[in-house]
Amino acid sequence: MAKTDIEIAQEAQLLPIVDVAKKAGLTEQMLEPYGYTKAKVDIHSLTDKPQKGKLILVSAINPTPAGEGKTTTSVGLADAMNKLGHNTLLCLREPSLGPVFGIKGGAAGGGHAQVVPMEDINLHFTGDFHAIGAANNLCAALLDNHIKQGNALGIDPRRVVWKRCVDMNDRQLRNVVDGLGGIADGMPRQDGFDITVASEVMACFCLATDLLDLKTRLARMVIAYTYDRKPVTVADIKAQGAMTALLKDAIKPNLVQTLENNPAFVHGGPFANIAHGCNSVLATTTALKLADYVVTEAGFGADLGAEKFLDIKCRAAGIAPSAVVLVATVRALKYNGGVAKTELCEENLAALEAGMPNLLRHVQNIKDVYGLPVVVAINAFPTDTAAELALVEQKCNELGVHVALSEVWAKGSEGGLALAQELVRLCEEPSHLQYAYQTQDSIEKKLHDLATKIYYADGVDLTPAAAKQLKQLEEQGFGNLPLCVAKTQYSFSDDQTKLGAPTNFRITVRNLRVSAGAGFIVALTGDIMTMPGLPKIPAAEKIDVTEDGTIVGLF
Amino acid sequence: MAKTDIEIAQEAQLLPIVDVAKKAGLTEQMLEPYGYTKAKVDIHSLTDKPQKGKLILVSAINPTPAGEGKTTTSVGLADAMNKLGHNTLLCLREPSLGPVFGIKGGAAGGGHAQVVPMEDINLHFTGDFHAIGAANNLCAALLDNHIKQGNALGIDPRRVVWKRCVDMNDRQLRNVVDGLGGIADGMPRQDGFDITVASEVMACFCLATDLLDLKTRLARMVIAYTYDRKPVTVADIKAQGAMTALLKDAIKPNLVQTLENNPAFVHGGPFANIAHGCNSVLATTTALKLADYVVTEAGFGADLGAEKFLDIKCRAAGIAPSAVVLVATVRALKYNGGVAKTELCEENLAALEAGMPNLLRHVQNIKDVYGLPVVVAINAFPTDTAAELALVEQKCNELGVHVALSEVWAKGSEGGLALAQELVRLCEEPSHLQYAYQTQDSIEKKLHDLATKIYYADGVDLTPAAAKQLKQLEEQGFGNLPLCVAKTQYSFSDDQTKLGAPTNFRITVRNLRVSAGAGFIVALTGDIMTMPGLPKIPAAEKIDVTEDGTIVGLF
Repeated sequence: MAKTDIEIAQEAQLLPIVDVAKKAGLTEQMLEPYGYTKAKVDIHSLTDKPQKGKLILVSAINPTPAGEGKTTTSVGLADAMNKLGHNTLLCLREPSLGPVFGIKGGAAGGGHAQVVPMEDINLHFTGDFHAIGAANNLCAALLDNHIKQGNALGIDPRRVVWKRCVDMNDRQLRNVVDGLGGIADGMPRQDGFDITVASEVMACFCLATDLLDLKTRLARMVIAYTYDRKPVTVADIKAQGAMTALLKDAIKPNLVQTLENNPAFVHGGPFANIAHGCNSVLATTTALKLADYVVTEAGFGADLGAEKFLDIKCRAAGIAPSAVVLVATVRALKYNGGVAKTELCEENLAALEAGMPNLLRHVQNIKDVYGLPVVVAINAFPTDTAAELALVEQKCNELGVHVALSEVWAKGSEGGLALAQELVRLCEEPSHLQYAYQTQDSIEKKLHDLATKIYYADGVDLTPAAAKQLKQLEEQGFGNLPLCVAKTQYSFSDDQTKLGAPTNFRITVRNLRVSAGAGFIVALTGDIMTMPGLPKIPAAEKIDVTEDGTIVGLF
Repeated sequence: MAKTDIEIAQEAQLLPIVDVAKKAGLTEQMLEPYGYTKAKVDIHSLTDKPQKGKLILVSAINPTPAGEGKTTTSVGLADAMNKLGHNTLLCLREPSLGPVFGIKGGAAGGGHAQVVPMEDINLHFTGDFHAIGAANNLCAALLDNHIKQGNALGIDPRRVVWKRCVDMNDRQLRNVVDGLGGIADGMPRQDGFDITVASEVMACFCLATDLLDLKTRLARMVIAYTYDRKPVTVADIKAQGAMTALLKDAIKPNLVQTLENNPAFVHGGPFANIAHGCNSVLATTTALKLADYVVTEAGFGADLGAEKFLDIKCRAAGIAPSAVVLVATVRALKYNGGVAKTELCEENLAALEAGMPNLLRHVQNIKDVYGLPVVVAINAFPTDTAAELALVEQKCNELGVHVALSEVWAKGSEGGLALAQELVRLCEEPSHLQYAYQTQDSIEKKLHDLATKIYYADGVDLTPAAAKQLKQLEEQGFGNLPLCVAKTQYSFSDDQTKLGAPTNFRITVRNLRVSAGAGFIVALTGDIMTMPGLPKIPAAEKIDVTEDGTIVGLF
């Protein structure tokens, strides 16, 4: 029987984190160890060091229930780059506890391409998400306390937009009425909780360039509106200092290692819908100062993940990838071609051909809209047939793009050498990142550019409410911010049933709001869940720990 | 101008935690460093090591707004014991973020008697409280998910007794209605949040003897009742494994140091009203294996803190103090004698004499009820007069008890040498811990013994609701558990305005409930706040962090 991820991870021979750090060019003095295989990195001494590395972004086709393996491919690719003798650092997001106890299990790669210690990374890790949650909830407590203690700012309790959060899938908290009990217990109002990764604190944390920048971002977050509809910020309730104090250690990038003992930063993890879905700017820019190549990934498919990585994170941080990997599986492409989940193991060239346009459109977006070299990585499954793989290759080649089979799940770095070699080649190609829209354009123009260029929509419709919000946001001076579209991850369109490469559709924006600290306008197309629920049989029921502290049942 | 606590703490020369560990008899292999000045201790290799140390409990008179300085005295005493050449370990509770951002500020001692790194200990530390909160909230999410997904156990949503928690003073969450929004969003029900330290997970954590014992305790916690009023436990929803997995690192004691570089365990911190109010059993028993003397403290005054330390923790862990310190201040004694808070700086022998019975009753309880040697430590203030100090000494001496002036706040260990010498002497006296009540007696008899022997009440009255609960608890088989009385900390009685040494009163028990995991019956006398609020000007407003990560404004 095949070993589970956690079994493979627990059999790994880990290097002391000090030795991993040395590989990454970090001295022991820069490490703050958390046990012997995890460390935070004090990057103060690197402040003036120039970036030297080439950045490789791993993105994917639209996700399907069949799974794509973006994180696994990223880990295996970084190991393969190192195997080829290229000094390479990996940058990943931190997992949230919500999916760990829900349905997805761990989020640290899989098979022979994982970051370790896998259990620790999936459970608390170095405490960053709890720190972010505490900062978020301190802000909430101070806000409600302000209202209760006389409300000098005139905050309208019906217009508080700040939510509390918890790093847990807990649907019971989506919609609540709090402040009940009487005058001594607060002000009754409608409220709700988000999962921690959906907090704007997380988004600020991941875009901040240092502690001071983080404090500045936190200070300007809009948390409520007054009775006369003026924005109330974190600075208005004097919360930014204490919130930043809670984040002073969290902001330091976390260093761990792959199963093959190569260094990896795992730091930050914002939602990929209402936020930008990639690891911290600090981890990425630090890695670019240290390594010749940096492999990183972005959440969901390339229409959301790569788009935000490029249009938000790269623009904010002044960085750009030298090449992009688009991960797909034959199974997922067949699913996009209309095959039911239960029949994905059968060869089906017609369905594959029908599903290919999803991949090809993402390829064209990266190449033509963003102007970046791209390679397709097919994450191999035993059920893939030679004819299927040949068809994928043929279609990609027609666009001038190479395909590499990735077998890192089964073989580790050995299974990623072809992909790594292609990336080394691509990184030498000249490239110049162009954005999908210009921030100085109007919100409407930016929405239109994004929807037509990246999603292939015919245009954008705003609901009356959204149109009103658009006007208010421009009046409040937020018109020049980039966009962060919250859209279903399953389709290029805003209808999750439209698989493949849909055309003849329009995007409907139902809600526009500002994340003033993160520095973007969130455009919601439909209902976006910011607090997941647990399934009928949660993964938590299988998770256990033995007497000596060994975790079992984590996937 | 006198330096603030944080200024003194930040000027301290800290030893690498490895060197602190050596002083405590711990090898580097047993440490899991968290940075260079904090570590968790893997105590597996100590399992079979016998306890050798003598335990010293630091308790106090009933708290007053004037402050007593129990933690400061404990830290200074441990330093003084070490100064005298006695190998001594300190065991303290971990601070909660609630008071840090509320009114109290930090909780790591004060002046020249602190544990450091003070900022880290006060903010997140090694993440234990967040882990406890996550375990608590995972249980809540699984419970509500069970109800939502068909409710096979028949849980009555009106009889869920498990609350979510957050490590924050947030009165807005005391009383909520959650599960609103519709069928997909849970089951609407009345609910509420506690501060994390009030969670029964915390109480279990602090009484557990190892990871397996913790899991067993968690499994038996009662979290709800069915429609036919049967208890529902954590085991019924299969949550104990994942909850314990979340606590696998937290359960390891945290090692830090005092300002004088002596080792200290700072681990766990349950409420002192609905729980037992002292640091983890694991920290204390580990310390007793390593050191010749172990100094520890218990929350609130001796009627609550020492009582629970002795009747709950010592009974459960099979340990006993060799001597007890009762901390008092002249100011607090005068307050107990009826002087207003604003006039405590004036010499007032009459008020002091009127307040002394509070101290003397605690002295007698420790000596006569529990059979333990006791010393009174007067935490010195500049306003104390010679005549006042002489009066305290005379009254104590009449009971055969010595008084030591403690000047550790101003002078560190030098200010605690007299106290330390007296404790070395007392620890040689023969003693045999007797409990205030016998667990095998009926709940009513136990309540009566406690109220009459420790509080000097005339007896105990149960409200009709409490009488019914008592009957149910005995029917459910919980009758043989020890008691955990939740009572105002300001008075021996259940009326916080009755200062000094009140007589001619009865204790009214309004509510009885079981903490089946912790293993005690909580008897509530009046409304006990398990979610504090923030003051009009929260301490958080003053807390800030500089660009290099230095915390300012923490007290």
